[in-house]
Amino acid sequence: MSAPRRPGEAAAGGLLTDLYQLTMAAAYLADGNHAPATFELWARRLGGRRNFLVAAGLEEALRRLEALRFDEDALARLGSLGRFRPEFLGFLRDLRFTGEVWAMPEGTIAFAGEPLLRVTAPIIEAQLAETFLLNAIGFHTLIASQAARVTLAARGRAWVEFGARRAHGADAARAAARSAYLAGAAATSLVAAGLEFGIPVGGTMAHSYILSHPSEREAFLAFARACPTDPVLLIDTFDTVAGARIAAEAARELAAEGIEVAGVRLDSGDLGDLAGRVRRLLDEAGLPGIRILVSGGLDEDGVAALVASGAPIDGFGVGTRLVTGGEEPSLDAVYKLVQTAAGPRMKTSTGKATLPGVKQVHRVEEAGRIVGDTVALAGEPGVEGWPLLHQVMAEGRRLDPPETLEAARERCRAGLASLSERLRSREGGAAAPVRLSPGLGALAGRMAVGD
Amino acid sequence: MSAPRRPGEAAAGGLLTDLYQLTMAAAYLADGNHAPATFELWARRLGGRRNFLVAAGLEEALRRLEALRFDEDALARLGSLGRFRPEFLGFLRDLRFTGEVWAMPEGTIAFAGEPLLRVTAPIIEAQLAETFLLNAIGFHTLIASQAARVTLAARGRAWVEFGARRAHGADAARAAARSAYLAGAAATSLVAAGLEFGIPVGGTMAHSYILSHPSEREAFLAFARACPTDPVLLIDTFDTVAGARIAAEAARELAAEGIEVAGVRLDSGDLGDLAGRVRRLLDEAGLPGIRILVSGGLDEDGVAALVASGAPIDGFGVGTRLVTGGEEPSLDAVYKLVQTAAGPRMKTSTGKATLPGVKQVHRVEEAGRIVGDTVALAGEPGVEGWPLLHQVMAEGRRLDPPETLEAARERCRAGLASLSERLRSREGGAAAPVRLSPGLGALAGRMAVGD
Repeated sequence: MSAPRRPGEAAAGGLLTDLYQLTMAAAYLADGNHAPATFELWARRLGGRRNFLVAAGLEEALRRLEALRFDEDALARLGSLGRFRPEFLGFLRDLRFTGEVWAMPEGTIAFAGEPLLRVTAPIIEAQLAETFLLNAIGFHTLIASQAARVTLAARGRAWVEFGARRAHGADAARAAARSAYLAGAAATSLVAAGLEFGIPVGGTMAHSYILSHPSEREAFLAFARACPTDPVLLIDTFDTVAGARIAAEAARELAAEGIEVAGVRLDSGDLGDLAGRVRRLLDEAGLPGIRILVSGGLDEDGVAALVASGAPIDGFGVGTRLVTGGEEPSLDAVYKLVQTAAGPRMKTSTGKATLPGVKQVHRVEEAGRIVGDTVALAGEPGVEGWPLLHQVMAEGRRLDPPETLEAARERCRAGLASLSERLRSREGGAAAPVRLSPGLGALAGRMAVGD
Repeated sequence: MSAPRRPGEAAAGGLLTDLYQLTMAAAYLADGNHAPATFELWARRLGGRRNFLVAAGLEEALRRLEALRFDEDALARLGSLGRFRPEFLGFLRDLRFTGEVWAMPEGTIAFAGEPLLRVTAPIIEAQLAETFLLNAIGFHTLIASQAARVTLAARGRAWVEFGARRAHGADAARAAARSAYLAGAAATSLVAAGLEFGIPVGGTMAHSYILSHPSEREAFLAFARACPTDPVLLIDTFDTVAGARIAAEAARELAAEGIEVAGVRLDSGDLGDLAGRVRRLLDEAGLPGIRILVSGGLDEDGVAALVASGAPIDGFGVGTRLVTGGEEPSLDAVYKLVQTAAGPRMKTSTGKATLPGVKQVHRVEEAGRIVGDTVALAGEPGVEGWPLLHQVMAEGRRLDPPETLEAARERCRAGLASLSERLRSREGGAAAPVRLSPGLGALAGRMAVGD
């Protein structure tokens, strides 16, 4: 706690933006353009072997919109760049986000091409938000989507997010812990995230702890006596099977003192084979209640392979390959202008074309399974399914108090249950169950040919 | 500026740690173990196609060590977990980092297996620092190392870091901008980072700006008139060559008003081919001074290919694939106990063994080129070369004021110039010029066989 505020921390408001957002804002101001514009944020591709996304980051996004402002220090520093006129800096002094936001609630299953969030605001406000909205929604959604893959791979076994040390900074570590829990992790190792977001915290011990004692036995006994709440003993510092034998002896000694060893952790070697040998050893020692946890470079493939092998593993620690985003460490998310006061807008750049107009996404389920989504124009009549984008902000204010993380987690759980086997596949390649509505298709067609 | 302090922001001090660091600390306290221990931080592998690392993140690491504390709110929240005894919480109340730190200065070229940082402190303090030190040094070093690859690929042409929107949160965006500049980027697009670290900021305009105007011509004119400092016009919203023609006309019109268009940006399509066509068009229009900047999914390979093609490109924007770490989005860095009061320590886990003892890295150069490094025991006599690890903290205090980012940048520039052609290769696979000293080799050999 109580880290002093860092030199740049205050900059997380209006200055957390690309320079061009500010130069464009200055140009809009010079033009007197304060007309509302609508921008939408979506993933162009799912990336990696993903078949679906789990929308996340909305709380962070709304918090940043509420914090969009420039204080005197920020204005002075911006002025020092010598690029901006005093009128513009004066305008920024009074700037607040006053627009409306529609979004998929956190934990919603989503696909490429579907808006996750839509902002309608005076164009300067909407433009200035681009960088930090993409930054928040993109990263949280990336990690929640990867975490959902781990949850599916674990097939009901518990897994814990362990990745703080390899996350891209302190923010990333906290956000990754939150997104992992949202998408099914049982706990996080990161104390700050646990306390901030109300996520269960878990952890075992490090090899350094073992190495700082004369023997594994002494390390195990000292640790469990000092921390008797569900201690988990790390048994692979030297030789895993020998470590398991020593752990079993320590567990019996501790049981006599009223301390129950909860588990052992394996962090190296052939985890499936070792888990089997350790399980037999513990069972023969009369310790069937001691759980076996494994970690070490695991991702959804590693978890799935261990589950498929039938190895007697009770829980997984997943770190680096989750919190950094896995095989594709960013979401190809964009935030694009789709409508101005002059009407729908469309970009036709090679390979980067956009769909025009303000949109809504409709979902149809049958027997609890997603049948298909339709991306339609907002208000377009006759589109089947219920809307996935909900209004969450009006005139710069939230319409409802922040949703609990548990509610988002439950939405994700239900969403994962609604995926077909094809969409659940870890191998990717499933066709997205998404189509355009007649109204949107017709508009895009007209605009693409220069109507 | 003036983002309200976030709920978890204060947690960036002592709570930015894995739970097991705290349970181990509680166990050390129960044991009365306050003896000094030495931990070293290094990369086990370089990862990806890297042949070298650029050490970075030391400033952040030292700042976090100085901020290591637990205030009353943190203690109350920790207490709410029901895991920790009052004696331990009382101990944390007074805890400060009191140890010493040796490290490679930022910008130093490094290789796998070489300690980048070494901490000697009472074991509880050193252990509690593990998570946040790995988090800081690992990420900054990852990005600086990737940025150096881009710098080498650009062969003297300018490149700008553009990745804030795809970075893993706000911290990551700022840190990536800093590490990119450290390793040779000319500027960043992220205003917060530019103002915080004194990095030049750069940027152009977005497609949304073009789309919010009736035509490209009107957008170009309005922008340059409002922001006449080196305006760069984005010309690929509809058709790049047509956009270049319109930009040329606008540039002549603006020149008559005394506004000089600095450049045009291409963000899609075949960048090398289009750059050639745009260059010819601009030259024929009598505008040889307008620079051509390109962006769009570029990484070091894309930059190298464009440079090799001879395309008339003056500068590159590099974003996503830099700030997320490229093909391997984390550094395989570890922080391991190497010495306690009882002597050198060594872990022999399968595939994850460590080298025992307190170490120093020595470098030999000949004719300005790195010949080889030797990892030796600290104080080992007769080792050739100058030491790379310098003491930066004693008794928890910095020995010197923070180094300027420019000094680290110059060190990196000189370091890149000292790499052989083999080590500079983008393809990886060069043998690391690192060996163990006789003293270290002998100690490790004795301990591996259980001496």
